Amino acid sequence: MTLTILGCGAALPTKTRHPSAYILTVQDHVFLIDCGEGTQSQLERYSIKRSKIRQIFISHLHGDHVFGLMGLLTSYSLFGRTEAITLFSPEGLEEMIRVQLRITQSHLSYTLHFQVVDTEMSHLIFEDAKVTVHSIPLKHRVPTAGFLFREKELPRNIRPEKITEYNIPFVAIKSIKNGATFTLPSGEIVENTELTLAPPVPRSFAYCSDTMYYPPIVPIVKNIDLLYHEATFCENFASQATISMHSTAKQAALIAKAAQVKKLVIGHYSPRYNENEQFLVEAVTIFENTCLAEEGKVIEIGNW
Amino acid sequence: MTLTILGCGAALPTKTRHPSAYILTVQDHVFLIDCGEGTQSQLERYSIKRSKIRQIFISHLHGDHVFGLMGLLTSYSLFGRTEAITLFSPEGLEEMIRVQLRITQSHLSYTLHFQVVDTEMSHLIFEDAKVTVHSIPLKHRVPTAGFLFREKELPRNIRPEKITEYNIPFVAIKSIKNGATFTLPSGEIVENTELTLAPPVPRSFAYCSDTMYYPPIVPIVKNIDLLYHEATFCENFASQATISMHSTAKQAALIAKAAQVKKLVIGHYSPRYNENEQFLVEAVTIFENTCLAEEGKVIEIGNW
Repeated sequence: MTLTILGCGAALPTKTRHPSAYILTVQDHVFLIDCGEGTQSQLERYSIKRSKIRQIFISHLHGDHVFGLMGLLTSYSLFGRTEAITLFSPEGLEEMIRVQLRITQSHLSYTLHFQVVDTEMSHLIFEDAKVTVHSIPLKHRVPTAGFLFREKELPRNIRPEKITEYNIPFVAIKSIKNGATFTLPSGEIVENTELTLAPPVPRSFAYCSDTMYYPPIVPIVKNIDLLYHEATFCENFASQATISMHSTAKQAALIAKAAQVKKLVIGHYSPRYNENEQFLVEAVTIFENTCLAEEGKVIEIGNW
Repeated sequence: MTLTILGCGAALPTKTRHPSAYILTVQDHVFLIDCGEGTQSQLERYSIKRSKIRQIFISHLHGDHVFGLMGLLTSYSLFGRTEAITLFSPEGLEEMIRVQLRITQSHLSYTLHFQVVDTEMSHLIFEDAKVTVHSIPLKHRVPTAGFLFREKELPRNIRPEKITEYNIPFVAIKSIKNGATFTLPSGEIVENTELTLAPPVPRSFAYCSDTMYYPPIVPIVKNIDLLYHEATFCENFASQATISMHSTAKQAALIAKAAQVKKLVIGHYSPRYNENEQFLVEAVTIFENTCLAEEGKVIEIGNW
């Protein structure tokens, strides 16, 4: 599970910061989270295979999270894409996309599915054999949802040498992987812990942007491996954060601390700040294991 | 009069080419012509003062000419812009912009005027004391217009020493600037050419993209100083040019030659071509004074 940061600026792009776009790879998925202007170029720059993206998660319909979508979606057609794409977002995205497709006379070579995300309650919005995605209600100026990505717990791994040692038949293996004991012909019971090894610990990542300081996030992201939480301002612009319904670095760290996450990454920096260091200094006083979002940075999740 | 090239790629942005966007400065105007994705960042990169743009000319509603507009227009509001902007384009742009403003809940701090450009006939679409802009009907897959920018002819400049020499009264000066002679008290007539110097020669620039080879362009751009004509392909993909209603470098040069323009600049290169040299080699065999569009290049118009 890795997070690649394509854009960590706020609404106004600067020479060094693009608007929001993140790639989460988990198992065989390449999820795109938010899609600010220039995302397709950033995918190119950081060598992300755009063809592998099948799901795009849009947190809210502010331009800096969504104005890169049309370019990306129409470029797929130029590449002759046939695989469907599902767009998860609050209400309104479908109308915005369909109107532009019609007026620009763009005929997509693949199917677009739109799935509206409820921004008031946490729901399971995506699931397959290996991964779940839940929405996270956030509080911003427009309906906004974060996203919680979790690997599913895998069965335990059977130790091959034990199959030979105890002559375990094939039909018994599935139940042993799921935790069963094995009874020998003598009647002796072999404990599951002797027969199997624990599977890899499932990893988890949550994306919370944009949002004001909003403690109801805490129980939803409790104990996860990596939390991305926006930090548009530092405390020196706390009142501006309140007015615009954004968070400060301190507030992001308070959420991370309360949720006892393993690591926090902050971003969505206001262009008022030329340097990012100030955000880090402020956050680590509250939550030590904080790092800064930087474009092109790749974070391996769960290797800690 | 200078042309600054912000983006000269075709529909698919590449690592080195942005979609279409050009800045024409003429007199006190900073005109933006087309606005592909990433234009606002390109303005920043090449130090164009975006606040000075008051007119934006959109040739047609394909994404690579228009998907940068929403980012630019909403960023203006973040800067607190109050001066109105006029958007010239074929039918449909207003609906596309208004829907996005509504759904993204973007409230502009300034007024947007939309002026629909007829793509079937050439019209005067903008005029002030110093400049005129005419539309140029082009032939592409969707309604498309080019734009012809002309400085107006200024009055002749009076030679100050002649005012003293002939004791010319203030009231006579305006007519002399417009070409009148001056009659001395003796009845002797002083020719205008002795009293005045010719004004600077008005300069002219035309933007023709996207279009197939379309000779009706020729009389409209006859004898102008600089013609930008798209050259999406070279002749090795001439059939692809025909199908997609684009031009080859050779065809662009044929238009320039027939119109006897002073200089030709070609761009809108297909991503099939990694190098631009091939376009130039092909064009100069037909029209020698051709140059290549390159991002960041600034062309001083009329210094030849």
